[in-house]
Amino acid sequence: MSERLIYLPLGGAGEIGMNCYVYGYGEPDKERLIVVDLGVTFPDMDTTPGVDLIMADMAWLEKRRKRIEGVFITHAHEDHVGAVGHLYERLGVPIYARAFTANIARRKLDEYGIGADAVITAPIWPEKIELGPFSVAFVPVSHSIPESAGLAIDTPAGRVVHTGDFKIDETPVVGDPFDAELWADVARGGVKALVCDSTNVFSRHPGRSENTLGPDIEALMAEKTGMVVATTFASNIARLKTLATAAERAGRSVCLLGRAMRRMTEAAVETGLLSDFPKTIAPEDVGSMPRENVMLLVTGSQGERRAASAQLANGKYLGIELKEGDTFLFSSKTIPGNERGVIRIMNQLSEKGVEVVDDHDGLYHVSGHANRPDLEAMHAMMMPSALIPMHGEHRHLSEHVKLGEARGIPSVLAVNGTMVELTGNRPRVVDYVETGRSYLDGSVQIGALDGVVRDRIRMALNGHVVVTLIIDEDGAPLGEPWCEIMGLPETGESKTPLVDVLEGDLNQFLMRATKRTLSDDTALEKELRNITRRSAQSEIGKKPEVTVVVSRLA
Amino acid sequence: MSERLIYLPLGGAGEIGMNCYVYGYGEPDKERLIVVDLGVTFPDMDTTPGVDLIMADMAWLEKRRKRIEGVFITHAHEDHVGAVGHLYERLGVPIYARAFTANIARRKLDEYGIGADAVITAPIWPEKIELGPFSVAFVPVSHSIPESAGLAIDTPAGRVVHTGDFKIDETPVVGDPFDAELWADVARGGVKALVCDSTNVFSRHPGRSENTLGPDIEALMAEKTGMVVATTFASNIARLKTLATAAERAGRSVCLLGRAMRRMTEAAVETGLLSDFPKTIAPEDVGSMPRENVMLLVTGSQGERRAASAQLANGKYLGIELKEGDTFLFSSKTIPGNERGVIRIMNQLSEKGVEVVDDHDGLYHVSGHANRPDLEAMHAMMMPSALIPMHGEHRHLSEHVKLGEARGIPSVLAVNGTMVELTGNRPRVVDYVETGRSYLDGSVQIGALDGVVRDRIRMALNGHVVVTLIIDEDGAPLGEPWCEIMGLPETGESKTPLVDVLEGDLNQFLMRATKRTLSDDTALEKELRNITRRSAQSEIGKKPEVTVVVSRLA
Repeated sequence: MSERLIYLPLGGAGEIGMNCYVYGYGEPDKERLIVVDLGVTFPDMDTTPGVDLIMADMAWLEKRRKRIEGVFITHAHEDHVGAVGHLYERLGVPIYARAFTANIARRKLDEYGIGADAVITAPIWPEKIELGPFSVAFVPVSHSIPESAGLAIDTPAGRVVHTGDFKIDETPVVGDPFDAELWADVARGGVKALVCDSTNVFSRHPGRSENTLGPDIEALMAEKTGMVVATTFASNIARLKTLATAAERAGRSVCLLGRAMRRMTEAAVETGLLSDFPKTIAPEDVGSMPRENVMLLVTGSQGERRAASAQLANGKYLGIELKEGDTFLFSSKTIPGNERGVIRIMNQLSEKGVEVVDDHDGLYHVSGHANRPDLEAMHAMMMPSALIPMHGEHRHLSEHVKLGEARGIPSVLAVNGTMVELTGNRPRVVDYVETGRSYLDGSVQIGALDGVVRDRIRMALNGHVVVTLIIDEDGAPLGEPWCEIMGLPETGESKTPLVDVLEGDLNQFLMRATKRTLSDDTALEKELRNITRRSAQSEIGKKPEVTVVVSRLA
Repeated sequence: MSERLIYLPLGGAGEIGMNCYVYGYGEPDKERLIVVDLGVTFPDMDTTPGVDLIMADMAWLEKRRKRIEGVFITHAHEDHVGAVGHLYERLGVPIYARAFTANIARRKLDEYGIGADAVITAPIWPEKIELGPFSVAFVPVSHSIPESAGLAIDTPAGRVVHTGDFKIDETPVVGDPFDAELWADVARGGVKALVCDSTNVFSRHPGRSENTLGPDIEALMAEKTGMVVATTFASNIARLKTLATAAERAGRSVCLLGRAMRRMTEAAVETGLLSDFPKTIAPEDVGSMPRENVMLLVTGSQGERRAASAQLANGKYLGIELKEGDTFLFSSKTIPGNERGVIRIMNQLSEKGVEVVDDHDGLYHVSGHANRPDLEAMHAMMMPSALIPMHGEHRHLSEHVKLGEARGIPSVLAVNGTMVELTGNRPRVVDYVETGRSYLDGSVQIGALDGVVRDRIRMALNGHVVVTLIIDEDGAPLGEPWCEIMGLPETGESKTPLVDVLEGDLNQFLMRATKRTLSDDTALEKELRNITRRSAQSEIGKKPEVTVVVSRLA
């Protein structure tokens, strides 16, 4: 049977976040595999209450564990590297990444007691990593974190270019400028398929460079007379530098607050990326300085409840308290879904008299992703035989497919689980694989469809009643049944305590119940559950979740 | 003691939604009172899972029930009228509103079996309603729903102008154009205080008129060759008319889908506001028509899960199914916090091949609230002795105060519960009243601080374990304790079923427990709870909510 080249997204295609892509080469069902990115996505109360992190389901890969050659991480954003610690043992293959990304990955593995040698620091194009039928090069690209890379994946069937997240930025302040010559070099000899970031396909204006922000940020820092607090993603080292440099020029000392802020700057210093970052001061030194001489650089730009931003908005943090006359700058964009958290912080700051400045007018933030014209530029540079949009919701992938087709490039919409064969003249969907999500919940990994989270949501919506009944040695109820309620009002329609109403109705049923009913656990539990739900519905207008515990005295 | 005029917001000041404002006139603590608006706000999973509606706490008003003269509803948006049905009996005073608003209010009261005469249809300025020391006129104003009104509230201490929600729109398509002469008339003789909408204080450009939308919407309807679906708030009768008229001109028949869509158009027809609305067709007739000759006008612009939009995105609705080539228009703005629901629908539509058009470029929607320049125009028209911003989060009120002060108008930031005396030369905060929220939960009204919702959130985040233990007549455990889990993984670290691990640890404790421990219910329950939490923490990395049920055989 002839060999083939396949592409299979397990996460990140049909959503933004949780990136995980598989490439395979070999005879069908015997392909050797490489994995690109092991990212996470974040839970929310609506769909995943109590969950800590969400990752792509590894079932398909684990079954083919012996065929996996390695994992490549394109960059150190959580939605690309966040799951390495949680999933390393399940895949058991080496992880390749550039130095900064490797530094972050090793910190994550360390939390699981996995040694630093699990991650191999990769060289960059034109050097290649040879793994089975694959020859893979990290191609430096600009993005909103240092040392992002696309991958040039060479196979006997030709070259696939996997862009990773990218923008076209020739002056990115920190990290690699976009190098058009280098990418032209990658394109030389032909690109079988371009697998391309889709995040900003709906943004019609050309992307702006990171270095356009400096002057406006500097003007703001200089103009304000109180303390200035700035928040952005800690991983955006270039932004940290822009903010810190602006602060320094405005006569402000910089204080970093938040765990991620320290972790990221440490990693950047360790890997030589931040040699000329302004000196920082410790939180305990802030109090003794005039407010106009301080800038805090803090985590929590997305309104995260435990981050430094939220704590400063809410009260004191490490002895620092904001007050009237201070300014809080969101050098960030609110990710859809995070609006409530961000607005909560803005209002808390407003209550303190702190002026809030956001990116409403486009002065203080630029995106890390290629806008539509930049995607078109990438298409033109690569001139691929096929385009597969990735990293986007369905609507982004769909729009990106239209963009490719408009240029005459055969383009495929492949959401998670869609296996695409790239070997023929045109890309072709050859299989649909069952994919899903797994949740890190406390210390346990559970499946999204296990029902655990569904039960939590039901309890949150409907409350929970526990009915306990003891059946004596003769098969008769011992005393009356009793109810415990949680998450339900104490009284309803009748003003009698709800538990009394429920217990009364249950007892009425039991007094009339036959021996036969009482002897059948399943039937009895079902009946008690139904009575409880009906009784609650008429008393409080709500059908709760019900757990029935029948204990039989032996 | 001298008489005074007071203002007290119970809802809507420090938030957007749940409007409820009180005015009083008389000797301190003997003031006669009127209430302006009885609105609701909507629950979310993050803070109010399972709750149906959120209303202002009526405790303060109920205690002063005998002093209330009446309730005035400015317009028929849910955040102004939504609570009338739920709260009418608790206040027991007549409700005044203009005809369209009264029609909607009566429908809500009808659900509680309250007769139509509870609502009095009010005349408009210059006619006045005399109630105790108050003389109140409804002053027509433009907004995104018909027959909105501000209130001119005359008291022995002077006139308060309460704007209600408003915009300055001289061509609003349906309903009252903004009438500058009429408002000038209201201002004549002096305005003691202007209590003013703050929603759009951060929008710096002048507001746009409803009638600017027609041409672009018509062009869209004409250009598309498949079915067009348009969604907007059902209460925006002017928008419905703009959309329906555009459809008719493009040769499309209009079909209304969704309960609110029918209720609102009915009310508009009954009150004579919609005499020239294009003829509509029934959902069952849609199937037999060419797709290019149909426009569906549907509810659910905010991504509400049960609305027509969500159902059409998800599958069929009343036999109608969208498909490739159709177009879905969001003639609306996504309210912060609703992004996830709206994006979910957009992606489902994308999966069906339906083109989604939103207001990204500002072509298909205008706001119903006065932007900053229009607020300034209102300030200039009224020339009030005092400004009190209302209807806004803290940041909006704060910004609006700055705007007023910049014009030299004494301005007060008064959030819910702040009692402001307006009688003196300058407005003055005289009291802080305890306010809050009550929840409609099923058929029961519960307090926000009752702990019911807190318990639901805890179960959603942590899961729930129920521990049952029987103590025999001699005070010894009868058999072993047992656990039921809900919302927790079945196994953890040890791969043994979680319930077995918990029961094992509990049993170990019980085997060593003294008679004294076993005889003290409170101590025993506390101990069993702690053991369960510790055991779960080490097994699954999570501390669940625990309910302990100890049954003693008598």
